[in-house]
Amino acid sequence: MAKFRINILGCGSATPTVRHQPSCQVVDFRDKLFMIDCGEGAQLQFRRLGLKFSRLNHIFISHLHGDHLFGLPGLLSTMALHDTSGSVTIHIFREGARLLKEWMDFFNRKSPFEIIYDIIEEGEHRVLYEDQGLTIETFPLYHRTPCNGFIFREKPKLRHLKGDAVAFHKIPVAAIKSIKEGADFVTEDGRVIPNVMLTTDADPSMSYAYCSDTMMDMRVVDDIRGIDTVYHEATYDDSMTERARERGHSTSRQAAQIARAAKAKRLIIGHYSKRYNSEDILLAQASEEFPDVKLANEGLRIDLE
Amino acid sequence: MAKFRINILGCGSATPTVRHQPSCQVVDFRDKLFMIDCGEGAQLQFRRLGLKFSRLNHIFISHLHGDHLFGLPGLLSTMALHDTSGSVTIHIFREGARLLKEWMDFFNRKSPFEIIYDIIEEGEHRVLYEDQGLTIETFPLYHRTPCNGFIFREKPKLRHLKGDAVAFHKIPVAAIKSIKEGADFVTEDGRVIPNVMLTTDADPSMSYAYCSDTMMDMRVVDDIRGIDTVYHEATYDDSMTERARERGHSTSRQAAQIARAAKAKRLIIGHYSKRYNSEDILLAQASEEFPDVKLANEGLRIDLE
Repeated sequence: MAKFRINILGCGSATPTVRHQPSCQVVDFRDKLFMIDCGEGAQLQFRRLGLKFSRLNHIFISHLHGDHLFGLPGLLSTMALHDTSGSVTIHIFREGARLLKEWMDFFNRKSPFEIIYDIIEEGEHRVLYEDQGLTIETFPLYHRTPCNGFIFREKPKLRHLKGDAVAFHKIPVAAIKSIKEGADFVTEDGRVIPNVMLTTDADPSMSYAYCSDTMMDMRVVDDIRGIDTVYHEATYDDSMTERARERGHSTSRQAAQIARAAKAKRLIIGHYSKRYNSEDILLAQASEEFPDVKLANEGLRIDLE
Repeated sequence: MAKFRINILGCGSATPTVRHQPSCQVVDFRDKLFMIDCGEGAQLQFRRLGLKFSRLNHIFISHLHGDHLFGLPGLLSTMALHDTSGSVTIHIFREGARLLKEWMDFFNRKSPFEIIYDIIEEGEHRVLYEDQGLTIETFPLYHRTPCNGFIFREKPKLRHLKGDAVAFHKIPVAAIKSIKEGADFVTEDGRVIPNVMLTTDADPSMSYAYCSDTMMDMRVVDDIRGIDTVYHEATYDDSMTERARERGHSTSRQAAQIARAAKAKRLIIGHYSKRYNSEDILLAQASEEFPDVKLANEGLRIDLE
């Protein structure tokens, strides 16, 4: 199975505590690393998880609250020290790019390490990254300041060859690629061998959506419908539903309702308010709405498969 | 004994590692807290040591390298969340104040918490803070960018009254304060009772100097002569003496030579290069030059007495 792993580096909210670090995740897609949000301490968590700075080339910042980006100056300085010829692209709202650039132009001025800024516009739907196997799109969330989420979609994979059938029909090597992609095979004398005779189904393609920070909003469902795994913020429990709305946050039950409406297969919740000494109540209330809920925790690794 | 305690929050260099946090200390002087440098993660270390944000009103930044100040945005945001009517004074070089203000004006714009900037000029000698019991002065260090150190001096304490003599001479309450300060007493009929008849010596006043980052430079000795306890950076061991000079840093032996020349009573070393998996070699080489050397470590508390 090709690697598609979510690493949780931080899943607290507002301020780091002894229990939780501020928001940060790293998606490891076939050994390319993609960071989502970068709270203070992200670089140290990155090290603790044994991840490699040299494999990190894209960082996605959901919104301009400090607990989602105060780790950037330190992380970028460390990267600039380690890999002076490297570069990284920061996908971020315009004002964040401006503020970050001011700092990095000063603190990193002696390193040729390159920081590229890709400006996300408020409310934007756009593909931010694409390679042979993956696309990363952004879509709007509904917080008290402009905020965007991110969807990672694995592209369709190749079908599996049936070795015996390939041998029996004497398929030439040159035809293998198109057959794996689903084409039928036409013999020299014009007979059509249907693809299903030659292949079995490809492994399913996986997808992951990051929804933090946001209040519960059904427009999110439209954007993440059919996703495999969704991370949705769950700052509060039921008793704080009103406060959640006021602050542009969600309860864990609301996160689960979004996952259910989107027909997701799995839900990870995080961005816990620091009022909770245990997140069991958040898990319990979400689990009343959706069967497969997991509590995020620092160091948690989830393989999508 | 009145409290005068040094708390080590971080004593690594350049980048946080699993072994050491970047530079940060908190001086606890009779329950007022003074932070020196503020590397990334300082607010979390502050919490771990059980210190109180409400008692922190002054932060001193030695120089504008990221490992000495990237913790400021997070720390200040947390303080602004907790104590919206409070304030803090940041003593920092001009360009640092400008960059920090840009960030805090944006990220803290909703809190009335006040950040006051006190500009340190390059090479400056000045008293930055003074109260009834303490003065804090700054003095120049010799790094590859402008850098200043800080000296904390406890003011002379009051002499101890001899209870029996005070009773015998029928000293009125109104005269006690000046006697504790060292004055003789003159009776109604004009006799002089010398102060030494009425008091014993005050407890000694303690002092602490922070010297990081700096190359070995004898001008530092002039500024810290007679200090009780000195923290001096000791980035490298003897084998790296040349590199130390190139990078504007010191070896542990050089730190000890400075402490000896200044006739300090105690030396704390820190700001270790991350190349060391154990600082024993730094301790051993410093100890050949100076008798009382202590290795800084995260969580170390030293009471000056």
